[in-house]
Amino acid sequence: MTTQTGNTEAIAASRVIGTSVYNTEGTSIGSIKDVMLEKTSNGIMFAVIGFGGFLGIGEQYHAVPWATLDYDENKGGYVVPFSKEQLKSAPSYSINELARADGAKTRAASYEYYKVDPYWH
Amino acid sequence: MTTQTGNTEAIAASRVIGTSVYNTEGTSIGSIKDVMLEKTSNGIMFAVIGFGGFLGIGEQYHAVPWATLDYDENKGGYVVPFSKEQLKSAPSYSINELARADGAKTRAASYEYYKVDPYWH
Repeated sequence: MTTQTGNTEAIAASRVIGTSVYNTEGTSIGSIKDVMLEKTSNGIMFAVIGFGGFLGIGEQYHAVPWATLDYDENKGGYVVPFSKEQLKSAPSYSINELARADGAKTRAASYEYYKVDPYWH
Repeated sequence: MTTQTGNTEAIAASRVIGTSVYNTEGTSIGSIKDVMLEKTSNGIMFAVIGFGGFLGIGEQYHAVPWATLDYDENKGGYVVPFSKEQLKSAPSYSINELARADGAKTRAASYEYYKVDPYWH
């Protein structure tokens, strides 16, 4: 179920991109590379977290459900409720794979891995 | 009512930003400056369209409901179903005003102006 209210604070996508992300142990796991938006409905699907690689070469991406991000004022970044181990073996995709029209399974698989109910059900 | 499905195509926010926007007469009205996202739920609130100004100085913003954007392959940009006149007298805000925790009225006013039912009702 969606819990949209329109009454929460809003944030500009350009401010989200580039923000650091930490795991439950407080370790930096990378930063937000992009945000995946639904084209024809109002849903924010994923924060795309980039990790590893150098200057974008060989960089891998984890698509993490938007609702799992929690902003931590002290850290100045987002904390996701996943451990290092969970993230290490998480599925990783390219942004193109996540964006595909026939990518519904890919997107659902990411929600499943993190045990988050897709908001579109 | 929300019409989220999770089955539509997705697009990266960074690709949306910078895309040209046209009105119903086919006239360019500016480009997408940013996308406003709800912090604690899954909703995409607005495309923020910048128009006028120069190098960001004196630029004004229209917050247009995300669902009103329709991508036009031929134009290589989004078309919004509003006339020049409608847009001319539309409310304009700063990104900070749109992002505020107590900005629910501001956000609702924009939906009202464009006669779009807020997806959060």
